[in-house]
Amino acid sequence: MPRAKLVKETAEDFSALPSLEIDLEHAEYLQTIGEGWAHPLTGFMNEMQLLEVIQMKTLTDPVTGKRNLFSVPITCPLTSEDKERFKGASHIALRCSQLGDAVLAVVSKPVFYANRKEEICARTFGTQSLKHCKVERIMAEGDWLLSGDTQFVKHIKFNDGLDQWRLTPEQIQEQVKEKGADAVYAFQVRNPLHNGHVLLLKDTREQLIRQGYKNPILLLHPLGGWVKDDDVPTLPRMEQHAALLKDGTLNPDHTILALWPSPMYYGGPTEVLWHAASRVNAGITHFITGRDPAGIKHPEQDKDLYDVWHGQKLLVHVKDMLNNVEVMPFKVAAYNKQAKEMQFFDGSNPADFEFISGSQMRKLAKENQDLPEGFMSPAGWEVLKAYYQSL
Amino acid sequence: MPRAKLVKETAEDFSALPSLEIDLEHAEYLQTIGEGWAHPLTGFMNEMQLLEVIQMKTLTDPVTGKRNLFSVPITCPLTSEDKERFKGASHIALRCSQLGDAVLAVVSKPVFYANRKEEICARTFGTQSLKHCKVERIMAEGDWLLSGDTQFVKHIKFNDGLDQWRLTPEQIQEQVKEKGADAVYAFQVRNPLHNGHVLLLKDTREQLIRQGYKNPILLLHPLGGWVKDDDVPTLPRMEQHAALLKDGTLNPDHTILALWPSPMYYGGPTEVLWHAASRVNAGITHFITGRDPAGIKHPEQDKDLYDVWHGQKLLVHVKDMLNNVEVMPFKVAAYNKQAKEMQFFDGSNPADFEFISGSQMRKLAKENQDLPEGFMSPAGWEVLKAYYQSL
Repeated sequence: MPRAKLVKETAEDFSALPSLEIDLEHAEYLQTIGEGWAHPLTGFMNEMQLLEVIQMKTLTDPVTGKRNLFSVPITCPLTSEDKERFKGASHIALRCSQLGDAVLAVVSKPVFYANRKEEICARTFGTQSLKHCKVERIMAEGDWLLSGDTQFVKHIKFNDGLDQWRLTPEQIQEQVKEKGADAVYAFQVRNPLHNGHVLLLKDTREQLIRQGYKNPILLLHPLGGWVKDDDVPTLPRMEQHAALLKDGTLNPDHTILALWPSPMYYGGPTEVLWHAASRVNAGITHFITGRDPAGIKHPEQDKDLYDVWHGQKLLVHVKDMLNNVEVMPFKVAAYNKQAKEMQFFDGSNPADFEFISGSQMRKLAKENQDLPEGFMSPAGWEVLKAYYQSL
Repeated sequence: MPRAKLVKETAEDFSALPSLEIDLEHAEYLQTIGEGWAHPLTGFMNEMQLLEVIQMKTLTDPVTGKRNLFSVPITCPLTSEDKERFKGASHIALRCSQLGDAVLAVVSKPVFYANRKEEICARTFGTQSLKHCKVERIMAEGDWLLSGDTQFVKHIKFNDGLDQWRLTPEQIQEQVKEKGADAVYAFQVRNPLHNGHVLLLKDTREQLIRQGYKNPILLLHPLGGWVKDDDVPTLPRMEQHAALLKDGTLNPDHTILALWPSPMYYGGPTEVLWHAASRVNAGITHFITGRDPAGIKHPEQDKDLYDVWHGQKLLVHVKDMLNNVEVMPFKVAAYNKQAKEMQFFDGSNPADFEFISGSQMRKLAKENQDLPEGFMSPAGWEVLKAYYQSL
């Protein structure tokens, strides 16, 4: 069924309304909801929606009664002082001063409920540690959450050089149509692309063609919202991706490059459900998922926080909740030193393979060195090297 | 569809098999599975089942593909040493020395997987604290979990004076038939019953009769497994319930009293889903749920761990997953000092009401005093007083 357009640009004057200042991350959430990436959510979560999400990893569509896969909290925190200030208010305007003066959304008939931060974090991240980077952010929020009927009054522009890539689900569907695609396989990524990714993406296209599709198109869909400080920021990442399209490492005829507006959670198996379910809204037909999606090191112990295959296993297990989108699990690709190329790694000749980490790349860039031949598109490496050298 | 009987008593000799010693709590879990209270589970959880349960609060029936509400982990922990000892074993016998020599179950084609205790606890209990009484027990378990095809070779007897009340789902359904009931409303409880409970239980029957049922029967179904040390143990609780049936406080013609074998989790909203879903297996038609089901104080802060209404709200929200069992939410009943009786408490005249806690009851019992008139059946209080005085 057609979905209501949530953002309705308007010249209406909301300047007299009491307003809540939200940070950049929550502006990203607002955009995520407003542009339709969080269907069936039409505003920041209310208490019952949050309860269903953190417990069941689903969100019931109030119109159809259907349970949609929905695994992460998307809430609007505020302090007790702000809550007090809004007493009796029938409308609250949301603004983000980092993005200018404009009112971004208006919440009518506001309802405040307790921000049960400990419970939200424990259930979402599956850790008892308070040092997980996203847990730290949530635990620092105000003690209340705001919900209510939400009017999205403005398409948010971030003016950060990336707005050109912030395509709405509808814009992506238009490009799919223009390209005459009969399959769209989405790839969520928050790192620069090396030739292992490229191998995988080309292999996926070939697989789909073998299955009978005529023109499968890649939706290369990097995460565009908040990431932790030691991740490569969005702008150099996008420039690196663009370089790969320019030099033909990825075929532009077979690729749509767009930014997905959601912030990152580092929530492992829980988060990969969100990564996949959100992309369903762009009309994809296939979603690729690999090793340790959205994973992170344990904040206090020397190990991975999540089982590195649980995300893939869980997503495959619940794929019937993805509106007929097919999940394509993939193996790890690694650099074969003998062959001087990326190959799928099956564990059989480990001595031939090398894994090159982000911190190794950073070190090579600082020393103005090159990556091993065949590891990454040289044009992409130039972008990345420039970023690392600027640090 | 008819369910396979899991326990098949056999005289087969399993004494030569390598065996794993399980504690009493895990014998209770074994009984819970074996008697059919954990359908569609047919053995301790394997990795994929556990992953689905802790993330989605469901368990997919391998036969029908249907997703069943299932919210708590039921696993068989073992140490690295035990895992090493079982290397190459095709069958492992489960025994509980506290219950004698007998083999209780045999696990074939054993599969060992990591006991991700931190993640299991965080996701199930929604707390970052390590001092929650059940979290402490899980965190103390071995680092591995055992799963595999499970043969239940024996109906477990605990020889604790309570076996007479441990009715299987089939035995309960026989009693329902004998009583000619056209509705069965289940009440999960792990405390002695005061007149507030009695008021509620009678009120429920009247409600159902007003709805058109001719003979609604109460399944009074106290939890029979492990409880924390400061809860009233199962034996005096059952004797207290039996006293209420004997003196007519509860009508024996309208009541089936049976023990439910599961241990307690103190998992609040997550656990109430289990409490309800498990009883569906006994053929109930209605399930009562009140304030703060399975709740507990925060282990390290002076507040309730869970929102006291989240359990009821969540269960009502997902009741369509309960095989047409209707959920009956109820209000709080409290003692009205003026009227000298229990009444439903709507908050309108709070000064008239008194809430009497377990620790207050304990103090009164120690001092050989009586409860306020109309608070509890005198016969029930005698049982409870004797227990508290024995401490």
